Amino acid sequence: MTAQPAADADVFPRFAVTGRDPGSRARTGRLETAHGSLDTPAFIFCGTKAAIKGATPAQMRTLGTQIILSNTYHLMIQPGESVIRSLGGLHRFTGWDGPMLTDSGGFQVFSMGHGSIADEIKGRRNQGAKNQASGQAQGAKRQPTLLSVSEDGARFRSYLNGATLFLSPERSIEIQQALGADLIVQFDECTAFHDTRDYTARSMEMSLRWGDRCIAAHDRRGGLSDQGHAQGLYATIQGGVYEDLRRACCDYTAQQPFFGTAVGGCLGADKAQMYEVVGYCMPHVHLDRPVHLLGIGGFSDIFEGVAMGIDTFDCVTPTRVARHGWALVKGYPGERMNLRNAEHRTADMPIDETCPCETCRTFSRGYLHHLVRTGEPLAIILLTAHNVATMNRLMAEIRTAVPAGGLEAARRDWIGPVP
Amino acid sequence: MTAQPAADADVFPRFAVTGRDPGSRARTGRLETAHGSLDTPAFIFCGTKAAIKGATPAQMRTLGTQIILSNTYHLMIQPGESVIRSLGGLHRFTGWDGPMLTDSGGFQVFSMGHGSIADEIKGRRNQGAKNQASGQAQGAKRQPTLLSVSEDGARFRSYLNGATLFLSPERSIEIQQALGADLIVQFDECTAFHDTRDYTARSMEMSLRWGDRCIAAHDRRGGLSDQGHAQGLYATIQGGVYEDLRRACCDYTAQQPFFGTAVGGCLGADKAQMYEVVGYCMPHVHLDRPVHLLGIGGFSDIFEGVAMGIDTFDCVTPTRVARHGWALVKGYPGERMNLRNAEHRTADMPIDETCPCETCRTFSRGYLHHLVRTGEPLAIILLTAHNVATMNRLMAEIRTAVPAGGLEAARRDWIGPVP
Repeated sequence: MTAQPAADADVFPRFAVTGRDPGSRARTGRLETAHGSLDTPAFIFCGTKAAIKGATPAQMRTLGTQIILSNTYHLMIQPGESVIRSLGGLHRFTGWDGPMLTDSGGFQVFSMGHGSIADEIKGRRNQGAKNQASGQAQGAKRQPTLLSVSEDGARFRSYLNGATLFLSPERSIEIQQALGADLIVQFDECTAFHDTRDYTARSMEMSLRWGDRCIAAHDRRGGLSDQGHAQGLYATIQGGVYEDLRRACCDYTAQQPFFGTAVGGCLGADKAQMYEVVGYCMPHVHLDRPVHLLGIGGFSDIFEGVAMGIDTFDCVTPTRVARHGWALVKGYPGERMNLRNAEHRTADMPIDETCPCETCRTFSRGYLHHLVRTGEPLAIILLTAHNVATMNRLMAEIRTAVPAGGLEAARRDWIGPVP
Repeated sequence: MTAQPAADADVFPRFAVTGRDPGSRARTGRLETAHGSLDTPAFIFCGTKAAIKGATPAQMRTLGTQIILSNTYHLMIQPGESVIRSLGGLHRFTGWDGPMLTDSGGFQVFSMGHGSIADEIKGRRNQGAKNQASGQAQGAKRQPTLLSVSEDGARFRSYLNGATLFLSPERSIEIQQALGADLIVQFDECTAFHDTRDYTARSMEMSLRWGDRCIAAHDRRGGLSDQGHAQGLYATIQGGVYEDLRRACCDYTAQQPFFGTAVGGCLGADKAQMYEVVGYCMPHVHLDRPVHLLGIGGFSDIFEGVAMGIDTFDCVTPTRVARHGWALVKGYPGERMNLRNAEHRTADMPIDETCPCETCRTFSRGYLHHLVRTGEPLAIILLTAHNVATMNRLMAEIRTAVPAGGLEAARRDWIGPVP
C-alpha cells in the first residue's frame, strides 16, 4: 500500500486561537495533530463506516477537506476494531492521511437504543426503553437495541446480528486507540428530550465519572494510539436543556485534563432552543481548548455556533442529502436545491454560478436532474463533490470573515433572504 | 458550462490500419473523429443513460479511456432526445468531450421485447412474443414490451411508463443525430437463438433494407449531427448462427457506403459458437473499415476477437461487476476477483500488485472487502476505477503486442492458467 506520511509521534495535538471577531465570541484557530493541521472554524465530514459515501480520500483532499470522522459504534460492529488495527489503523485502512476524529459510540448506543435516532434528536416524546430494558419497542419505529445502563457501562444489541455488545469508558477508549484517530471523544450517556430533569442530572454526573475513567484509560497508554501517535481526548458536555446542569458539566470538565470540549446530548426541541442550550455552555467551557458541536451542520446553525465560539462542527447532511438529489447552495432559500424538481429538466446553468467546484464547472442542472431521476450512481458522486466543496468554501469564508469583523455580512451572503 | 473543445466540423470520421500481427488477422489502427481520435483495438465503456455508473468524465479520462457509448433506446425514453438536443447534445450534456458512440436502439427493443435480455443473449430457448405480439409474458421473467415488427419499423412499450413508442431506421437516425455521438449504428432487427433459420434469413434481409434507409437518412443531413459535426454510420451484421447468412450480410453491407461494420445479433449458445459465428463474418467484412463487436468484452473474448480482426469492443461488464463487488484482475483465474469473499477480510495487499491505478496504489483488499460488505457507495467508485483502468491497460498491452507478434504471449499473461 502507499506509504502514508509518517505520523509525527512527538506531536501531541495542539490548539491555538489565531484571531477573534470584535463583535462576538467567534474565533479562528489552528489545530495541529500527528497527521497534519486544520484551520478552524472547520467542518468535519462524516465517514461513518470508515468511508465518505461518494468520494475518495484524494477527491476529499482536492475539494479542500481538512478533517474526517468515523463512528466507533459502527466500526466496532463491522468490521470490528481488530480488523482495522491489523490493517494499520483508520488512516492506513481508509487512505485518508489527514486529521481524523472518532466519537465514543455513546450517541448511537443511546439514540438507537431508544428505537429511533430521529425522534431522539428532534426531541419528540416517545416511550424510551432505557429505564425498562425490556427490549420491546413501544411506539418507536425501530426495535430498541439498548439492554441496560449501569455505572459500569451500557449493554446493547448489535444492529447487524443481534449479538450482545458492551461499551464502557475503558472499552470505548480501547476501541478508539485501535482505530487510531487523532481526536477521540469520552464515552458518555446521551440523554433525550423526554428524560426528566432528575434523570438528566444523575446521568450527567455519571458521564462526568465516565469522563474521568476515559482520562485514566487514555493516560495509561501515554495518550497514544495503537499505531503510536498521540490522540487528543475531548470531554462531552451533557445536561440536557437545563442551564445549571450544562454549566456544572462545563465547570467540572474544564478542570480535568481533556484536550478539547464537545457539546453534545439533547440540544432541545427546535433550533431556537438548540442555540439557547449551546449558549448555556459556551461561557463556561475551557477557552484554550477547541470546542466541537456534535452532529450539527446547517449553514445557519454553523453561523450561530461560530458566533458563540464553536470551533468545529460535524453533520451527515452534506453527504446524505447529496444521495437524495439535493445540492447545498450559498444564498439559496432553505440552503438547498432539489435537483429532482421538474424545473431543472432543461436548465443549462450550473447548480451555483459562483461555485468553483468541478460539478459546477462541468455539468448543467438539466444533466444532474437526469442523473437524479434515473438513479445513476454518478448523481451521488457529483452532488457529494459539490456539497463537500460548498461546506469547505463556507468554512473558508467564515475563517476570513471572523478576524475582519465580517461574520454578519458572510451570514447574509450564505443564508439568503430571511423568510 | 465549460467550453468544450470545439468539434472540428471538417473532420469526418476516418480510420486507418497502422499495424498488423504477422500470425493472425489482428491489426492496430487509428480512428479519428470530430471529438478526437482513438487507437485500436479499443474498449468502449457503456454509459447507458448518458453516464458511466460510478465515474466522472474527468476520472474516465485520467483512467486512460478513449471512447464511451450511450444507448439510444434508454435515452429516447429518458430524458428524451429533445432534452439532450436542447442541452447541446451528448458531449456537452455529459461533459465527456472525447469520441462517443450510440447504438441504434434495436438490440434493446428486440431483446427486452422478448421478455428477458439475458435469456436472449445466452440463447436459452424461451417462448418469444415476437411473432405473437400478444403482450403477454410466457415463461419469461419480464413483461415483453415488443408490440409489433413490420417492414416499417418496430412498435414497443416504454419500460418506464408503458407508453407506445416506435423506432424505424429513419427515427433511429433522427434520434442519434439529436444525441450527436461521433459514431452511430444502423437500426436492425436483432434475432434470437430460438428463431428459425427461415425467420433469421428474412429478418436479416429486412435489416439490409433498413440499413439502406439509415444511409439515406444519414445522407439527407449531410452526415452531420444536430450539433453540426460529422457522424460515421456503422452497418450491423445479422444472420444468426448461419454461415451463409452472415456472409451474405457482410457482402451486401461492404458494398454500401457505411463508415464501419458492427457484428451483432445472436452469436450462439456459448463462447465456442460465438467465436465460430464471428469467424464466419470476418473474412467478408470491408477491411478498410473499423469493425466493432457489439456487447462482448471478457478478457478471453477480446483476445479471440482481436485475433480475428475486431477493432473495438463494448460491454457493460467492467462497470456492472464493479457494482457487485468484483474486480477484473490480469492473470486471475476466471478473470475476476470477488472482494466479498471472507478470505479478503484482513488482506493487506492491493487487488493487483501490478496495477498502477489509484485503487491499487492506495487501498487494501481488506478495506475494499469492508466497503463491499457494508454496501458503501465508495466501493462502486473504487472498483469501477480499477476495472476501467484494467480494461484500458489490457487494450494498451494488446496494441503494443499486435505489431510485435506478441498477441499470444499477452493472452497468456492476461487469461492466466487455462482450467
